[in-house]
Amino acid sequence: MSQSIHSTSPKNIIFMIADGMGVALVSAYREYVNQHADGLRQPCIYNHHLVGQQSTYSFDGWSTITDSAASSTAMATGSKTANGIIGQDKDGQRLESVVEVAKAHGKKTGLVATAEVSHATPAGFGAHVASRNDYFAIADQYFDDKVGDDFKLDVMLGGGRHHFIRPDRNLGYEFKKAGYDVIHTHSELAESTNSQVLGLFSEFGLPMAIDRNPQVIPSLKEMTQSAIKRLDNEQGFFLMVEGSQIDWGAHHHDIVAAMSEIADFTAAFEAALDFAKADGDTLVIATADHATGGMTMGVNEVASWLPEYIRAVTQTPGKIAKDMLLSHDWMQSLTDNIDFTLSSTELNQIYSTYQQNAFTPEQKRVNLEDTLCEIIDRRSNTGWTTGDHTGEDVNVYAFGPGKEAWAGWRENSHTGQQLKAWAAGQDMTSIDPFEAE
Amino acid sequence: MSQSIHSTSPKNIIFMIADGMGVALVSAYREYVNQHADGLRQPCIYNHHLVGQQSTYSFDGWSTITDSAASSTAMATGSKTANGIIGQDKDGQRLESVVEVAKAHGKKTGLVATAEVSHATPAGFGAHVASRNDYFAIADQYFDDKVGDDFKLDVMLGGGRHHFIRPDRNLGYEFKKAGYDVIHTHSELAESTNSQVLGLFSEFGLPMAIDRNPQVIPSLKEMTQSAIKRLDNEQGFFLMVEGSQIDWGAHHHDIVAAMSEIADFTAAFEAALDFAKADGDTLVIATADHATGGMTMGVNEVASWLPEYIRAVTQTPGKIAKDMLLSHDWMQSLTDNIDFTLSSTELNQIYSTYQQNAFTPEQKRVNLEDTLCEIIDRRSNTGWTTGDHTGEDVNVYAFGPGKEAWAGWRENSHTGQQLKAWAAGQDMTSIDPFEAE
Repeated sequence: MSQSIHSTSPKNIIFMIADGMGVALVSAYREYVNQHADGLRQPCIYNHHLVGQQSTYSFDGWSTITDSAASSTAMATGSKTANGIIGQDKDGQRLESVVEVAKAHGKKTGLVATAEVSHATPAGFGAHVASRNDYFAIADQYFDDKVGDDFKLDVMLGGGRHHFIRPDRNLGYEFKKAGYDVIHTHSELAESTNSQVLGLFSEFGLPMAIDRNPQVIPSLKEMTQSAIKRLDNEQGFFLMVEGSQIDWGAHHHDIVAAMSEIADFTAAFEAALDFAKADGDTLVIATADHATGGMTMGVNEVASWLPEYIRAVTQTPGKIAKDMLLSHDWMQSLTDNIDFTLSSTELNQIYSTYQQNAFTPEQKRVNLEDTLCEIIDRRSNTGWTTGDHTGEDVNVYAFGPGKEAWAGWRENSHTGQQLKAWAAGQDMTSIDPFEAE
Repeated sequence: MSQSIHSTSPKNIIFMIADGMGVALVSAYREYVNQHADGLRQPCIYNHHLVGQQSTYSFDGWSTITDSAASSTAMATGSKTANGIIGQDKDGQRLESVVEVAKAHGKKTGLVATAEVSHATPAGFGAHVASRNDYFAIADQYFDDKVGDDFKLDVMLGGGRHHFIRPDRNLGYEFKKAGYDVIHTHSELAESTNSQVLGLFSEFGLPMAIDRNPQVIPSLKEMTQSAIKRLDNEQGFFLMVEGSQIDWGAHHHDIVAAMSEIADFTAAFEAALDFAKADGDTLVIATADHATGGMTMGVNEVASWLPEYIRAVTQTPGKIAKDMLLSHDWMQSLTDNIDFTLSSTELNQIYSTYQQNAFTPEQKRVNLEDTLCEIIDRRSNTGWTTGDHTGEDVNVYAFGPGKEAWAGWRENSHTGQQLKAWAAGQDMTSIDPFEAE
């Protein structure tokens, strides 16, 4: 498809990644928020801004289906790589990221995630390591690996204290000495006005949205708004925002977690759109790095999907399981959080998991979580094919000046090339997704 | 999303429906035709022409996930209805279809399908009955239910002789008397030059593409080209083309059938594009009515999809099973059609199904088919969630004048409204997918 030539070059780009949000999860989210039989649904924000799709596959001899490291590297650097690798090609050559190009061209930069800020997806935009599991090296690079004399990231907000503040090195102390605000709570985020900030709101990933204490842990929307406020300046900015845990929910076949994490991401997307509408010179792009779990609406040979059973659950099954095992009254703890009447078969299934022996308390919690997920999936007719990622293309949504350059289909590596072209002050439409042909 | 105003009104529309072709199947097809580890895939024709997506859900109290009847009715008439209903709303009110509007405005019209031409999807464009299973009534209406004095369909090509030529009524004879060519073979299709034709190439649906004898049964591409040649005229035409059996493959979790049926549909899509490019005044739209089976690449907790095991199979598992049961040498019959070395476990699994007792020979064939599908799915890491349809949005592809009106997301009923606006000589962009808000 030939793209219309449109030379608009927005001052700012907010690039948002819904980790694991395949097409089926987006459609399910529309049903989740407003399904009513016999009537037209209210279109959701994603319907309004759909412009195209991108591929996700990685360059891997065996593993044709990407992981978050390879996909993030493609979107951040413009080059596909093998699974597990961050910001490098398969030969270990460093690949420059859009963050580095933007910073070199005088823009401010930021990463926001609900996982550790040092997790694979944000890392693809800020680090260069052979393995995504080198979390300490990734965090170190956010401090050590400068662009000229500048730190490459002005804003880092998310989880991952464990990777930054360590016995062998305290990056919190080092960033503070270098002039950053280093913060750990919701109220500190609200109070801090420093344009440079490292915000680490939990040891590892943040609690899932539906389980979060909003007094202590900021939402993705709050982190996004805070990041935008700090980054907004004359020269423009590049901000990557990740809804990290949609993927984690889908890996566990936990449709409660997946839907509520999409809600958390959607609120952040809407906040970014609000800023872009007011600003007039900001392009917002939202997409996914890959799909996860092979989720579909409709299973059990029944052509029906019933989100009312998902909406009736007020914590993730993982959190309910944890509470049940800590409580003196497991049944109360269960029924406090599941607002539909469990059948005697379901209660038997839960109780037999609850009272079984397991190797460790954690294993018991996981077994109980799995049982609860299974019941909610069965009630809602939610299907899954795998605990891993799947290989289909994912949607691309865009709003703002330059969005025409994002219409149609592209490789995820062309996404990265377009972002880097923009960061270098070039025309985004100079990247032709079909150039290789 | 606001659409760009573009008043181009093409003379012809070729509207193509890949029944059951969800997003994951389209992405899989790209891998199927050119997967090579470590390298960029060749983009496929769908990547070039992606413009948006449409919803698929129907208006049904229980069954929120559509069937082909409700979805076809939405795309043909502009109104959603309940599952099973053809060309009517839930109260039995007749809904005018794009075919009828086009005919009333002097255009020629045609339906092409690899299912019976009287099957649910084509029927949505040409009939009005309370149940999709009233095949005889549907076929009768193609003759009896006129637009003014004219037959509503100039061209009908596909399967379904059983529904047209019956003990109680011979519609073949009646159409012939009325001036139509009535044909039954590949060579008759090539010889006939009549602009009005009823072509019924099998009793029910056509054999699947990979099992077809091309000397006897035309391909979807040949039927499409033949239809276009007959319909092309000064006043323009509306042609609906359905790749009907992608869905049937997916219902059976038969990835060999699904991929080869998509290949058959793709060849027809390319032929339509070739005509549109040469003609300059034809809009080609391709989409799906819904997704089927919950297919994903990647399963067995392995992030890999291996289409070489699909390409290595030269007939559908259903046809292989049939041949095995007719053959004196089942093993020869098997290995003639599966070009990879089956493991001893796999051979044992096949043999134990082959020699088992079953209630009927047909049940035995089905069991054997299921076993072969299971082995190919396991080898290729293909996953499925259900034997039924699933609820996610499907892609929309477009090429030609007016394609801008198809960018972004819409309800499948807005698709029908846009088609009918075009048929009535109105501006397609007058339909706003977000009007209800």
